[in-house]
Amino acid sequence: MPNMLSPEVIAKAYARIKPYIHHTPLLESSLLNEWLGHRILFKAEGLQKIGAFKIRGALNTLLSLQEQGKLPKEVVAFSSGNHAQAVAYAAKLLGIKATIIMPEFTSAIKMQATRSYGANIILTPTRQEAEALAQSMTEKGAHMIPPYDRDEVIAGQGTACYEALQDNENIDAVFAACGGGGLLSGTYLAVQALKPSIPVYGAEPLKGNDAAQSLRAGKIIKLAVTPDTIADGATALSVSERTFEYLKKIAGIYEIEEETMLYWTQWLIHLLKTAVEPTSAAAMAAAAEWLKTEKTPKTVLIILSGGNISPQAYKKIWQDNYLEKRPG
Amino acid sequence: MPNMLSPEVIAKAYARIKPYIHHTPLLESSLLNEWLGHRILFKAEGLQKIGAFKIRGALNTLLSLQEQGKLPKEVVAFSSGNHAQAVAYAAKLLGIKATIIMPEFTSAIKMQATRSYGANIILTPTRQEAEALAQSMTEKGAHMIPPYDRDEVIAGQGTACYEALQDNENIDAVFAACGGGGLLSGTYLAVQALKPSIPVYGAEPLKGNDAAQSLRAGKIIKLAVTPDTIADGATALSVSERTFEYLKKIAGIYEIEEETMLYWTQWLIHLLKTAVEPTSAAAMAAAAEWLKTEKTPKTVLIILSGGNISPQAYKKIWQDNYLEKRPG
Repeated sequence: MPNMLSPEVIAKAYARIKPYIHHTPLLESSLLNEWLGHRILFKAEGLQKIGAFKIRGALNTLLSLQEQGKLPKEVVAFSSGNHAQAVAYAAKLLGIKATIIMPEFTSAIKMQATRSYGANIILTPTRQEAEALAQSMTEKGAHMIPPYDRDEVIAGQGTACYEALQDNENIDAVFAACGGGGLLSGTYLAVQALKPSIPVYGAEPLKGNDAAQSLRAGKIIKLAVTPDTIADGATALSVSERTFEYLKKIAGIYEIEEETMLYWTQWLIHLLKTAVEPTSAAAMAAAAEWLKTEKTPKTVLIILSGGNISPQAYKKIWQDNYLEKRPG
Repeated sequence: MPNMLSPEVIAKAYARIKPYIHHTPLLESSLLNEWLGHRILFKAEGLQKIGAFKIRGALNTLLSLQEQGKLPKEVVAFSSGNHAQAVAYAAKLLGIKATIIMPEFTSAIKMQATRSYGANIILTPTRQEAEALAQSMTEKGAHMIPPYDRDEVIAGQGTACYEALQDNENIDAVFAACGGGGLLSGTYLAVQALKPSIPVYGAEPLKGNDAAQSLRAGKIIKLAVTPDTIADGATALSVSERTFEYLKKIAGIYEIEEETMLYWTQWLIHLLKTAVEPTSAAAMAAAAEWLKTEKTPKTVLIILSGGNISPQAYKKIWQDNYLEKRPG
């Protein structure tokens, strides 16, 4: 069983990556606050480098290796999404080679973004072939950066919440989406570092609710197939032993229906005028459920994980009109 | 013939409205810069109060009236778009009543936004009825704020460019969209105030190219019907005598095809992770054409007019995928 990190690692990770990342703003909508009767603060990681919080974990990993004099000559990662861009960008920044293995169905725009950061891309038809390829590359000396199952990645992801809590101390609860659990684990650690009295909640698509199932079962449940959800940042088949330890400590996890994520994606894009991935909207949906049961006005922090949305996803998001029924 | 304003009015307008508006950021995309071989700075007025530059003109008008001891008890405006929200918001800020007359086909979400700022909304089936109604209200003492044909409105709109030029002095050309010409006239004045040596270009939909036609004819040409364009911020039937005087001074006006606006709308949303109205994308399209003929690297300023996009417009924007062919 991997040991949980001590909350102090977040401050160290933040000091390490701070010179290279954006201090993203805390956005809010006065209309939404009025409608819900609470204050909702959004940590806008869509405005982060590469358009997502993932750069934090990738950078913390490579900078930690560099500090230890162990910076590899080449890194490798397997991802169709934001982690791919994060590893590519971080490697370019540190002047090392990056190879990203992507499934063949990856959208052209995500390949292009990854390639534009200078990475070499290899497409494979199945996840099995990808994993075998990554394995053989690491045997030849490339360094593998996993998307969530690593201490430095978890600590890096936690800096988004850490930064937000430093900007506003009056927060009563924090919400973040859960894919493999890296962001949620890091968020839990950041809260322990700065305001351990407040609860941390997760959110995942109901269609890919392996984390909620795992918490109910008391052991890790792995999905048989990649879930068909609009929340493409939450399609990991399972959490890891490492992230599961943190997930057991959080206050709870909400399972969000597809329509509810589409609803909040449209509303957050409309109200915040910024790109909000459906995965991020799941965290808002969770907060909205939680706030309904609160009797006094609360201030909550939503980690908006990213703003990288493929044209295919945008087309699905705007197929129907969810803006006719306002929140609250 | 109305007299043109002196450029100094922009500084005064800016001092007047500054406490009430956002200092919007200058965004840029390193990828886009690399692809085009130039530097493109975007004045992100989508992140302005009410989601568009229009608040600047409405506020400058009301604050000017207040300075003169002439603040009316009620204002009235006719608009289906950003001007409606601007007048509603400015009136609420100054504690006066606002009545907005809207065409019946106005999207629900724009009505809701206007109403949320406390305005009274009256729907009319035709523009003629709207104008007659506005006329009768002004006869009863309400003060009419036109969307562009007024000195204070023009001066207010010019403060977006003024603010941007103060943030970055190395700009070689400025681009802004043209509907009734208020933004473009104000932008021209701002450039005269701070950097009169650089050219100002306009952009309008080819399908609603009354300004370009007017410049070619040397007199104002009025469209017979509201143009059916995705650029809903550029559907005025004609410019006014007042704005035409400024338009005659600018370096030129580009007429942009619908597909080109859709192309740039998708790309700017994708690269900047912020809501960009198709009307704003027209200004980028103009800049891209201009930059093609420039032999040395240039820095251009694009005024992104706003980010208020109805769900119906979003659906049209993402119907096809324009992200497969990258700019440059």
